[in-house]
Amino acid sequence: MKKVTVHAPGTVANLVCGFDILGLALNDPYDIMELTLLDEPKVIIHNRDEYGLPTEPELNVAGVVLLAVMEKIGGNTGFEVTIEKHIKPGSGIGSSAASAAGAVVAANHLLGNIFSTDELVQLAMNGEKLASGVKHADNIAPCILGGVSLIRSIHPIDIISIPSPNLHVTVVHPQIEVRTSDARQILRQQILLKDAIRQWGNIAGLVAGFLKNDTQLIGRSLEDVIIEPIRSILIPGFDEVKKNCKEAGALGGGISGSGPSIFMLSTEEETARQVATVMTDVYQRIGIDHHIHVTTINMKGVQIF
Amino acid sequence: MKKVTVHAPGTVANLVCGFDILGLALNDPYDIMELTLLDEPKVIIHNRDEYGLPTEPELNVAGVVLLAVMEKIGGNTGFEVTIEKHIKPGSGIGSSAASAAGAVVAANHLLGNIFSTDELVQLAMNGEKLASGVKHADNIAPCILGGVSLIRSIHPIDIISIPSPNLHVTVVHPQIEVRTSDARQILRQQILLKDAIRQWGNIAGLVAGFLKNDTQLIGRSLEDVIIEPIRSILIPGFDEVKKNCKEAGALGGGISGSGPSIFMLSTEEETARQVATVMTDVYQRIGIDHHIHVTTINMKGVQIF
Repeated sequence: MKKVTVHAPGTVANLVCGFDILGLALNDPYDIMELTLLDEPKVIIHNRDEYGLPTEPELNVAGVVLLAVMEKIGGNTGFEVTIEKHIKPGSGIGSSAASAAGAVVAANHLLGNIFSTDELVQLAMNGEKLASGVKHADNIAPCILGGVSLIRSIHPIDIISIPSPNLHVTVVHPQIEVRTSDARQILRQQILLKDAIRQWGNIAGLVAGFLKNDTQLIGRSLEDVIIEPIRSILIPGFDEVKKNCKEAGALGGGISGSGPSIFMLSTEEETARQVATVMTDVYQRIGIDHHIHVTTINMKGVQIF
Repeated sequence: MKKVTVHAPGTVANLVCGFDILGLALNDPYDIMELTLLDEPKVIIHNRDEYGLPTEPELNVAGVVLLAVMEKIGGNTGFEVTIEKHIKPGSGIGSSAASAAGAVVAANHLLGNIFSTDELVQLAMNGEKLASGVKHADNIAPCILGGVSLIRSIHPIDIISIPSPNLHVTVVHPQIEVRTSDARQILRQQILLKDAIRQWGNIAGLVAGFLKNDTQLIGRSLEDVIIEPIRSILIPGFDEVKKNCKEAGALGGGISGSGPSIFMLSTEEETARQVATVMTDVYQRIGIDHHIHVTTINMKGVQIF
């Protein structure tokens, strides 16, 4: 029986001024998935973790992605998948994207690499649609490709890998619930042109900073005048965490995905660890349980073993 | 008497999806300015062209910039300037910026290069304020620096040079009047978030395309869903020019500055010339006089002779 194990990394989407278009992959945490090819057209799901996610294929993120793969290839192929999640669902660091991207990359490997990267992204977006109601690729693309991904467009799909310096990433996940659908609903449908201009100055600066390896420019450009002021209200301690982390030397950061996790980028590992301490201080003081990851940008994406 | 001659290039601001933040310099046309240092605090202006621009310093773009320089340095220094404009005022290719940038670079040279680039831009923006009522730097910065300039912010000033491939630029100036202030007034103050997201995907793609030397990506990213649909109404023939130029092989383009000029980028000189033919065809058919420049990106900015 053909079988493969993959590691699917967590990701930070909505990269500050890059709402809906920019994401990056993390070296920690990552999900582990084992996929086996079946010779009948069905999907069997096993969970090897404590999250109690649905095992009905139509209700499971990896399941709907594998069903989409089956629909695309036809015939009698099916999949059995065992999922060991380490990226906590609802944390805002791409848990559903990891399930979706891990499933599609593993399936593609077992099928002899029949899909292009764009097709992999398209297929995996079915999982995001199930998880959040919206097809988006700013977690999926960096999860599959690694590094920083720009999703210029999803109709048609246009994904650009953005080379970046090896930055350190500190992520804090305060244990509160922010539903992606709620986080979307509170956004205003109309925004001020002057704010949009400032935002596209920043996203242009951020992309230039990544490509020019200019960490100071990256830092200056990590500003979001549109989404963050609204969504940060849903995250207790956000303003204080951000302020204190920047004072501790972080280049900058913001809400990871639609929250509640907050991420910060640093040039040095020591700074990233100091940032973690600052985050812990805030959440201990306001009495909210939290997890912290001190990691780096994952340059490989989903890895096959 | 200390004297200098400078060439100040035309510029394309509002570079499609880079409204208010991105501009590039042109090798043709350019203004010629001669500046002489005076030992009394006054500004004398001579025009050596047919445009009849004001010679009162307070009403002349170069004049207000030189007055701002004098205010900054104090003492008994003044300037006499002779301006030979080849960039037609009101054309949308940075005529006022060339006067302002040329004046400040020439003055700085005569004063022994006492100003930083940021200070030069700040001083020159006084000219834009006179010309259009708004301080903006997306003509000024590329005029001074050459190449493609990103103005991430003007408060505080943050200008980033964006390396770019050597592209060919075709500019058509239909002889109609579009006042910058009118072009600003018809813009909506509020825009849809979904349009803004598409725009910042495009500006990110455009900057990445320049930096990665990916002309196809540049072409795909040259899309403006916010400003162009409104402002293009003021420019007869715009849609047809754009469509035909792209069919002729241009990567893309749009309104230069606030119009009425239209610019197109091409990878090959032959294509740029073909694009010029296409532009002429449209304006001859609809009976509007026009000038065309077939040129390249100016990498040097204001040149001192």
